[in-house]
Formats: sequence, C-alpha cells, structure tokens
Amino acid sequence: MARTSNREKILTEGLRVVHERGFANASVRDIVQAAGVPQGSFTNHFASKEAFGLEIIDLYDAAGRALGARTLLNEALPPLQRLHAWLQAGRESMAACSMRNGCLLGNFAADACEQSGSIRRRVLAAFSELQASVACCLRAAVAAGEIDAQLDCDDVAGFIVASLQGANLLAKVTGEAAPLDRFERLLFERILPAPRSS
Amino acid sequence: MARTSNREKILTEGLRVVHERGFANASVRDIVQAAGVPQGSFTNHFASKEAFGLEIIDLYDAAGRALGARTLLNEALPPLQRLHAWLQAGRESMAACSMRNGCLLGNFAADACEQSGSIRRRVLAAFSELQASVACCLRAAVAAGEIDAQLDCDDVAGFIVASLQGANLLAKVTGEAAPLDRFERLLFERILPAPRSS
Repeated sequence: MARTSNREKILTEGLRVVHERGFANASVRDIVQAAGVPQGSFTNHFASKEAFGLEIIDLYDAAGRALGARTLLNEALPPLQRLHAWLQAGRESMAACSMRNGCLLGNFAADACEQSGSIRRRVLAAFSELQASVACCLRAAVAAGEIDAQLDCDDVAGFIVASLQGANLLAKVTGEAAPLDRFERLLFERILPAPRSS
Repeated sequence: MARTSNREKILTEGLRVVHERGFANASVRDIVQAAGVPQGSFTNHFASKEAFGLEIIDLYDAAGRALGARTLLNEALPPLQRLHAWLQAGRESMAACSMRNGCLLGNFAADACEQSGSIRRRVLAAFSELQASVACCLRAAVAAGEIDAQLDCDDVAGFIVASLQGANLLAKVTGEAAPLDRFERLLFERILPAPRSS
C-alpha cells in the first residue's frame, strides 16, 4: 500500500485548512497540526508559506480543470447543458461546506493578492483559463444554435467568471444558495439570448 | 483647532491599512504604526481586533451610505442615471488605488467571515442595506417608465450587489477596470429590460 508522504499530507490538509480559514488566517502551525506532521517538515518541503500557497492553488485549479473537462468541455453533452452541469457542480461543492468556504481562488484574490505578486499572477492565470473554457462552451452553444450568433462569447465568459465569484461571496456571507440560484437563473433568462430565428 | 484623538487616528489609518492589506494580514502593530500612536493606545480604545474591525466596517459603510444618498436615492436625478452615477463613483474609488484594494466589505466577506460571526453579520447587514437602496432605485425606474414594470426589483438588486462584488474582485486581480465596465454594460444592455410599450 502506498504511503502518503508528509509533503502530500501537508498539501491535502493544508488546502482544506486554508480553504476553511483563509490563507492569512491559517498559520504554518495550523497546517502542520492538521496534517499530523512535525513543523520542520513544512520547511523541508516548502521554501516559504507563499510557495506552499502557490502549490495549493495548483491543486485546487487542477480539480477545477478536471471539473471543466467533465462539464464545460464535455462534447458528449449539449453545450448549454454543460454550462448548467458546471454551475450545478460548483453549487454542490459550495453546499458541501454549508457555503462557508467559498471559492479558494476568490478567497486568495481578496486576501493574498496584495501581499504576493506571484499569487496574484497564479490566480489570474486560473481565472483566465476558466474564462477560456466558458467561452469555448458558449461558442459551441452558438454553433449548435442554442444561443444567438451575435453573442460576444469571450465578453460574456468574462462576465460569467466574475459574477459567479460575486455569487459565491454572497452565498458565503448569507450561508444560503440563493445568490447562486439567482445568478444561474438570470444568466439563462437574460444574458444568454435565444437564437433570433427561433 | 480640534485635535484628532488617538482613537480617530487608529480608525482612519487602520481602515486604510486593512483596506490595502486585508484584515488578517494587517497586524495591530501595523495599525498603530500607521496611526503614529503607541501600541497601548489600541488596547485602551478597542476591546479586541474584532471590535476594531467592526468599527472600521461601520466607518466604511457610513461612507457607502452617504454615496448611496447622493446617487441611488437622489430624487433630483432620473433613476437609471442614479444607478450609473453610483457605479461610476465605485469605479473611481477602485481606480484611486489602481484597483488594488477592492471593496472592504467584499474583502471582509472572503477573509474574516469564518473567523468571526459578528463580522459576518455586520457585513451581511451592509450588503442587505445596499441591496435595499438598489431595489429602491430600480422601483423608481419602473415608476418613471425607464424599465419594464415586470422586473422583480428585489431579485435584480440582489444580483447587482453580488455581481458587482465579483467585478470588483476581478478588477483587483487583473488591475484593470474592464470587469467593472463589462458588468455595467451587460447590466444595462441585458438585465434591465426596456419598457414593453417603447
């Protein structure tokens, strides 16, 4: 049976602790305690807390990209159904912690960007890639005749990524899914126009 | 000439420091250094860092309410012009720090809500009041025939408050006003429907 290395334990448990408490609020001591490893193990494996932060963003982003591949970019589903599936999965992951944790990328954006240019650039790269996946899904919806061909897919994808961050933030503050439900409803009712011919 | 009390200095300079760095990242030492007062002065005036946090949210929120009175609730202006004026003022205040600081309420929401139920409730109250002011402006726009009478003003006001937080967050990460411009454009083009009779 494969042994989980201290490095892996620090990353997995550290991601959980940072997601729950915020990067600035989670001390290295909190992280090693959660991982059940000695404090020296952290400094053996990570040059700094910032270096650790960049690695947990990578981990979180890899999960986000895997979700994007199963939903937004999944050509086995009709395009708008992919978008619904992606939003649904996001809502479920928010609900799994009673909305409390929010999106790790958004938390880093609010909390740690000013402290670290590397973290800001890493978060920006993740948002940009997500926006590209949403735009790809919207272009597929245009090609399939599900939404109007005049839609500026990149522009609306940027709007979706940003607005969803806002909905996550309000869900976190209110502890309710209503902001997420409202975003999805208004997105499909108002932002994504039906084809003109229909 | 009125003398600025240490308490006022801590609040004014502390608000600035917390807005720049985030609540968790700003230590009491950073705050008293910026205020130019002895560390003991902080503990004389505030029972805890959380109590100080609640007071700077009050200060920030009072400025936000004053802005709302000059824009969203200003009956001297046509309703949709009030909404534009409010968004414009928000964009200018974001631009004054090259987008870096974001919205203090949003930063607290991402950063400190899980640490403090009092802060979460205070931030939620501020968002709720803001949503009520936006809804009031939208109802005036309906009454003035500027937007469709079928609009659910409370629902759309909730969407506006949330989405604007997301746009602020993306402006902060990108360092650009584009997410704010995009939000305002799509809001007026797609979310707020023209009256059916026009």
